[in-house]
Amino acid sequence: MIPDSSIAIVGVGMTRFGYTPERDLRSLAHEAVTAALLDAGLAPRDVDCTYVGYCLDLNGQRCVPGQIALRGLGIDRNPITRIESACASGSLAVHEAFRAVADGRADVALAVGLEKMSGASAEQTRQSMAGGADAQLEAAFGITFPGVFGMAARRHMYRYGTSLDQITAVAVKARRLAALNPRAHFSKAVSADEVLASRMVADPLRLLHCSAISDGCAAVVISRASRARGAASRPVLIRGLAQVSGDFQSLSDLSSFPETTRAALSACEGAGIGINEIDVFEVHDCFAIAEIMHYEDLGLCEPGGGGALVESGSTEPDGRCPVNPSGGMIGKGHPLGASGVAQLVELTEQLRGHSGARQVSGAKVGLAHCIGGFTLGTPASVAVTIVSI
Amino acid sequence: MIPDSSIAIVGVGMTRFGYTPERDLRSLAHEAVTAALLDAGLAPRDVDCTYVGYCLDLNGQRCVPGQIALRGLGIDRNPITRIESACASGSLAVHEAFRAVADGRADVALAVGLEKMSGASAEQTRQSMAGGADAQLEAAFGITFPGVFGMAARRHMYRYGTSLDQITAVAVKARRLAALNPRAHFSKAVSADEVLASRMVADPLRLLHCSAISDGCAAVVISRASRARGAASRPVLIRGLAQVSGDFQSLSDLSSFPETTRAALSACEGAGIGINEIDVFEVHDCFAIAEIMHYEDLGLCEPGGGGALVESGSTEPDGRCPVNPSGGMIGKGHPLGASGVAQLVELTEQLRGHSGARQVSGAKVGLAHCIGGFTLGTPASVAVTIVSI
Repeated sequence: MIPDSSIAIVGVGMTRFGYTPERDLRSLAHEAVTAALLDAGLAPRDVDCTYVGYCLDLNGQRCVPGQIALRGLGIDRNPITRIESACASGSLAVHEAFRAVADGRADVALAVGLEKMSGASAEQTRQSMAGGADAQLEAAFGITFPGVFGMAARRHMYRYGTSLDQITAVAVKARRLAALNPRAHFSKAVSADEVLASRMVADPLRLLHCSAISDGCAAVVISRASRARGAASRPVLIRGLAQVSGDFQSLSDLSSFPETTRAALSACEGAGIGINEIDVFEVHDCFAIAEIMHYEDLGLCEPGGGGALVESGSTEPDGRCPVNPSGGMIGKGHPLGASGVAQLVELTEQLRGHSGARQVSGAKVGLAHCIGGFTLGTPASVAVTIVSI
Repeated sequence: MIPDSSIAIVGVGMTRFGYTPERDLRSLAHEAVTAALLDAGLAPRDVDCTYVGYCLDLNGQRCVPGQIALRGLGIDRNPITRIESACASGSLAVHEAFRAVADGRADVALAVGLEKMSGASAEQTRQSMAGGADAQLEAAFGITFPGVFGMAARRHMYRYGTSLDQITAVAVKARRLAALNPRAHFSKAVSADEVLASRMVADPLRLLHCSAISDGCAAVVISRASRARGAASRPVLIRGLAQVSGDFQSLSDLSSFPETTRAALSACEGAGIGINEIDVFEVHDCFAIAEIMHYEDLGLCEPGGGGALVESGSTEPDGRCPVNPSGGMIGKGHPLGASGVAQLVELTEQLRGHSGARQVSGAKVGLAHCIGGFTLGTPASVAVTIVSI
């Protein structure tokens, strides 16, 4: 029995992620928001405020993406606020929407994650994405995100003996699960050989070790559980959330992000839930090595044990600690501002038991984890959200 | 006597606004935040969370400006969230920081408004600023903000007989007051003849009718009034706040923004304060005609009476309803993300009686008003904040 006063995700919706230059922000947002409101059994006029995670501002829409993309839906008189923290933008939009309900400002708050990356030139995209790190002290010296994670992979291999095959296993799992997810960017599984034959991006990471340039929108409706009576499906409670910023003083090397540990511990403490009680994880696999690092930083295995963990099958949907059953960013796609919200769409559907062939059997508790941006080798933001049914 | 539980601005700081290509985001932010913490009698480690208003992403720093600009101050482990709503970004950062204290998440929250506009090419700047309107339906057809306000001026002149001399009077007042504000971009008063001799930007608006491309940072520290005991100066209570989004269904013509009226009424209702009880206003004078429109939309005069109001001297610091004693955006400068926070720096100093030659005598209640972005001819966001001492 859910207490009526509990705050919950009462509706979810998302577009298929993919490369869709023919679609605009408005088309993406209307599809996802309409689906989320339908799932919640609520009308647009019920939405008291909206937080929009949006990151890169490609294709000319530099400011106020929410007002632009949501116009005409009937929710556009009330506050719409854009939240940006690079790839964690969507996660933090969810957190702010949760707080709007928690502090009584809103009966119903909407969190929307939105990004359209196709249609911009490769040079615009590169420059814009490099602006997620320090433009003066990192990007100006040629640091890119593939570069950072290529170095992280090399460091992890050096420090722990992690093998390229283990890193590749993350990508193979991601694409296999994505093929079971009708809203994933990629619908075709790939073999380890195919991953290793794809073109080099940032040694040792090849194209299929990397998340893709995608378009997409995801939306979650947040309200007191008592408002969820008209919902098509069961509400999923938001139990804990945490946000931390990069702590460059504690940077040791690139084989670990201590910020992930700090955020996960804080969210678990808030939720009163131990990490070993979590049934399903969605984590920030922007590159295959990142998922291995997150296993370790989240405490799913010892430091250095991440490569063996994925090889053992423990992070498959039927394993001991399922990670990224959605196909993750590598398989599902990574429209930056949308990804944090999409993680919560996946977890909501998993906890409701609606995930079809990629269902984690009996999942009751889920954890979403996003990192966003870089500052001197540390993630600028890490956001963790814990949900349960 | 201020109730201890009241939430207040307990410290303020800002850089001088100006054209400073030699300065970076970090230099601007460190100066403003250090000054605000000193004023509050607090240390960096006391800050529990930070909201950063930042808008245009010029000069390559596309994402996570807060983490980049605040690094090394000692506040960078806790949540830092960027808020964007075009020119209202800073105002909404203040609102979110207020809420962080109100809902108990933070004992001390920091709101930072930040923008560096110099150093980018004119073309980058134009494109980026045009992205504050609908990139597809407005910017793509050549709509720019000077263009919008040029049309608004023509419409206001046609509908109400407002004269160019009246519009010019706004700019003359702004520059005269800015010359009394040591942190203003412009330190020299100008005559009406000089305004009318400056080059045409968007008929009938000339260069000196427009706010300037500026760099700058402003910061306010928000806490329960009981935390303000170490503050160098008196706390200023946050009494009411409101945020509304553009309502293109109710657009009639460009001579008025009904969103301003809606936001001001909502903030006044929340504060339990009538508009006629407000002693000093800081409003969004991005262009001289805008200040005249805001007089009317805020109810300082009848629709169409704004031109006569400024001519009468009523909006001077010693007038019936003082507006923009800081020099406003036209005189003080308009580093977009910083402006909303800078308005509250000015109001805080006014209510404390620290504003020197531009002091509004005996001011006890102030109202800040920002508009941000456009969507089909309506402001995308309007934010209003009411403070008192």
